[in-house]
Amino acid sequence: MKIDLTFSVNNIDELQLRDKNVVVIDVLRASTTVIAALHNGAREIIPVSNIESAVKISGSLFGDVTLRGGERGGKMIQGFNLGNSPLEYTEASIKGKSIIYSTTNGSIAMWKSRFARNMVVGAFVNLSKVTEFLSKTNEDALVMCAGDSSEPNGFSLEDAVCGGMVVQQLSQMKNMELELSDSARAAHTLYKSFGRSIQKMLKDSAHGKYLAGIGYKEDIQYSAQVDSLPVLPILSGSALKLKKDEKRAAEPEITPAVK
Amino acid sequence: MKIDLTFSVNNIDELQLRDKNVVVIDVLRASTTVIAALHNGAREIIPVSNIESAVKISGSLFGDVTLRGGERGGKMIQGFNLGNSPLEYTEASIKGKSIIYSTTNGSIAMWKSRFARNMVVGAFVNLSKVTEFLSKTNEDALVMCAGDSSEPNGFSLEDAVCGGMVVQQLSQMKNMELELSDSARAAHTLYKSFGRSIQKMLKDSAHGKYLAGIGYKEDIQYSAQVDSLPVLPILSGSALKLKKDEKRAAEPEITPAVK
Repeated sequence: MKIDLTFSVNNIDELQLRDKNVVVIDVLRASTTVIAALHNGAREIIPVSNIESAVKISGSLFGDVTLRGGERGGKMIQGFNLGNSPLEYTEASIKGKSIIYSTTNGSIAMWKSRFARNMVVGAFVNLSKVTEFLSKTNEDALVMCAGDSSEPNGFSLEDAVCGGMVVQQLSQMKNMELELSDSARAAHTLYKSFGRSIQKMLKDSAHGKYLAGIGYKEDIQYSAQVDSLPVLPILSGSALKLKKDEKRAAEPEITPAVK
Repeated sequence: MKIDLTFSVNNIDELQLRDKNVVVIDVLRASTTVIAALHNGAREIIPVSNIESAVKISGSLFGDVTLRGGERGGKMIQGFNLGNSPLEYTEASIKGKSIIYSTTNGSIAMWKSRFARNMVVGAFVNLSKVTEFLSKTNEDALVMCAGDSSEPNGFSLEDAVCGGMVVQQLSQMKNMELELSDSARAAHTLYKSFGRSIQKMLKDSAHGKYLAGIGYKEDIQYSAQVDSLPVLPILSGSALKLKKDEKRAAEPEITPAVK
């Protein structure tokens, strides 16, 4: 199985993702939040590329089952119902709802993956579900770290380390032959160095520091808990969903390669 | 001193580099070749962004003092005088010449840096000259790894490891207080892991394998020799040059920050 990895969603053309198996990782916080929302009973998450789309789409849907969630600069967008803290996405606030979702990096990575064969959302909180999915499909995959588009370098340490942890778990599976791109090897090395304390790595990362500074320290602790939310969001049409019985540890819906 | 680092020239806007101190790194092979050419007596290297520019510019210059050099797919461009192997840039072939230079990643990174306050070219072959320059300016700097624009991930292991070695050398200097971006920390970690054998790392890298496959194995050995070409190309107007007395270990021309 070949594993490629991008450190940033910058410069990715959506057609490059066509027919690929893509794992979108935005640890702080879009991936973690989407996983938390579906784990806590949201009906679906519809990732969009910008605020205008979010407003347009949610305007044509039934008001009482649709919410708008997301952030700019880490903070809730004016006129939205929810920000981007996973702690906001409780059962009480989102059960049964469709959530139109717009963030600075993560929702764009999810939206750019809409032509992928399979797209799943990964973070530390569901890491083993991601590697289980990849090992079951047993096909080449692209781990797409969303990164930080506000920096020229586009890089986020936390996403790279999480991508490297995916490589690490796969490499430890029996009968798994991995072929890694340079970037996947690099991420694996970063995991081996920074993965010893995920919580410390998140705290010391540029975006972790930023989030702590604007009052979201608890989100960092929440995002650091490996396998605490064992569900796998998978793109189905335009929406991220769980299979109905996902909470009972069912198989995700996987689209096989055309032979 | 703050050090930021990009893993790829993809998605960099030239105006983001305005007024910055930039080190362009494209180990295999643009940086190494530019350093070799100037070390061996070329008058100047004029990096351009595409083949059309190279043809246009060289057409208006005197034929016998101007050469066209560069590559596409690692191979010499039709109608050019030189490819992109540093071994071609011997004193016999390039002494006193102006070289119009176009490559897939490196010359683009150099060209995009034309509004930088200072832009120097770095590789393993002149590593200590780069860190000496940075420590003397003692200002914030951006290490711009050219990377590989033909890959969606844009990443080249060899450029990242070389950037990390710059960080490593700076961190060992006395009285040097470094503030590293996430990407600079990551590159530093990659150097500590992959830098133990630079030649092996280059051989095992995706682009190293590609170059060996098309007959440029010797370029890899050449590019791995740390500090073998102790000169520092610095952008002056549109051309990369050495100071006249650079070979006698003179100071590079440094543009100070406006206070």
